[in-house]
Amino acid sequence: MITVHGFSVSGNCHKVRLLLEQLGRPYRWVEVDSARGGTRTAGFLAINPNGKVPVLVREDGAVLTESDAMLFWLAEGTPFLPDDAWQRAQALSWMFFEQYSHEPYVAVARFICGWTPLDSPRRAELPRLRERGHQALAVMERHLATHEWFTGARYGIADIALFAYTHVAPHGGIALDAYPRIRDWLARVQATPGFVPMPAPDADAQALIDRS
Amino acid sequence: MITVHGFSVSGNCHKVRLLLEQLGRPYRWVEVDSARGGTRTAGFLAINPNGKVPVLVREDGAVLTESDAMLFWLAEGTPFLPDDAWQRAQALSWMFFEQYSHEPYVAVARFICGWTPLDSPRRAELPRLRERGHQALAVMERHLATHEWFTGARYGIADIALFAYTHVAPHGGIALDAYPRIRDWLARVQATPGFVPMPAPDADAQALIDRS
Repeated sequence: MITVHGFSVSGNCHKVRLLLEQLGRPYRWVEVDSARGGTRTAGFLAINPNGKVPVLVREDGAVLTESDAMLFWLAEGTPFLPDDAWQRAQALSWMFFEQYSHEPYVAVARFICGWTPLDSPRRAELPRLRERGHQALAVMERHLATHEWFTGARYGIADIALFAYTHVAPHGGIALDAYPRIRDWLARVQATPGFVPMPAPDADAQALIDRS
Repeated sequence: MITVHGFSVSGNCHKVRLLLEQLGRPYRWVEVDSARGGTRTAGFLAINPNGKVPVLVREDGAVLTESDAMLFWLAEGTPFLPDDAWQRAQALSWMFFEQYSHEPYVAVARFICGWTPLDSPRRAELPRLRERGHQALAVMERHLATHEWFTGARYGIADIALFAYTHVAPHGGIALDAYPRIRDWLARVQATPGFVPMPAPDADAQALIDRS
């Protein structure tokens, strides 16, 4: 059985849990609070010297890092990844878009709002992060004008990758009001068989989000 | 025949050219000077509304964005991408690392040094970009202590993805002196069959790099 080391309220970690649940694939989950130093302990660094979650560990001890690479590996040969090479490349294109043009803004704005003190100097980054986050959402909204999903003809790993932080963009002060197609797509994702919601931030994080 | 719209001195664009050359696959190259507005023209935006190079266009007009997704598509079924699913996922893991933890520092530092004026306010970002760039190089150096390549047992698309900006890291003020294994790996990449070098920056960019 595989083991996933992850922080449950992290979108990057939740991606992997969501796909595993939808695949019905057994796994062991080891909770790591990366917001409070859990990825900096000697024990964790022995598993992943890069000090990041999620980490996927096979039964034989082999390690895989990077959430979207895990999605690709888990989905190969399943309906969550197209068979057609061009469609597979399009799904990967959205996943690289997610990691380069979406997550560094949408996820980082959320992190700063919920997991840094109200007087953190990092809060000065928020206006720029929100502006770039909206640019990413506009790209998604445009795609959804002519497509139902991001993975190809049906729901799959590019949708999971983009869902993870898009649905909690408001935690970072990035409202979804201007994106009706994104809101409809989020609802379609939430209605897929075996969908499991991402846990809510804890009370401390929620209080910070409410005041951000 | 496929068409690639790209800026030849951009590492992200050169990745695609290098693989096409090594595959011996015919292609048409359309030069787009993204540092001087070439990706903001109406003509270019009609091809890629996101306004980024590279863009790959199939003969039937279908478009693929994101350099590393292009590498994956071009390499499927060739020796540049492993057949084994776990090895393929490891290659993708390095490509996501490249786009998330390497390119935003190593490539952006190079861009700022060579393609922004000496009095650009963006130059204030350089110390942090260089620090994070060195962190990425340290991760690569550690991998190379026990592996010859990043794609698996042999040279392939993860090596091409990482080579693109690593070999020109010094343009951004990120020296490679402290990374002997990276320097050896760069030489191995440069010795692979069909290797083509990335064009040097033009005289204006080189003058800025020299003074940065």
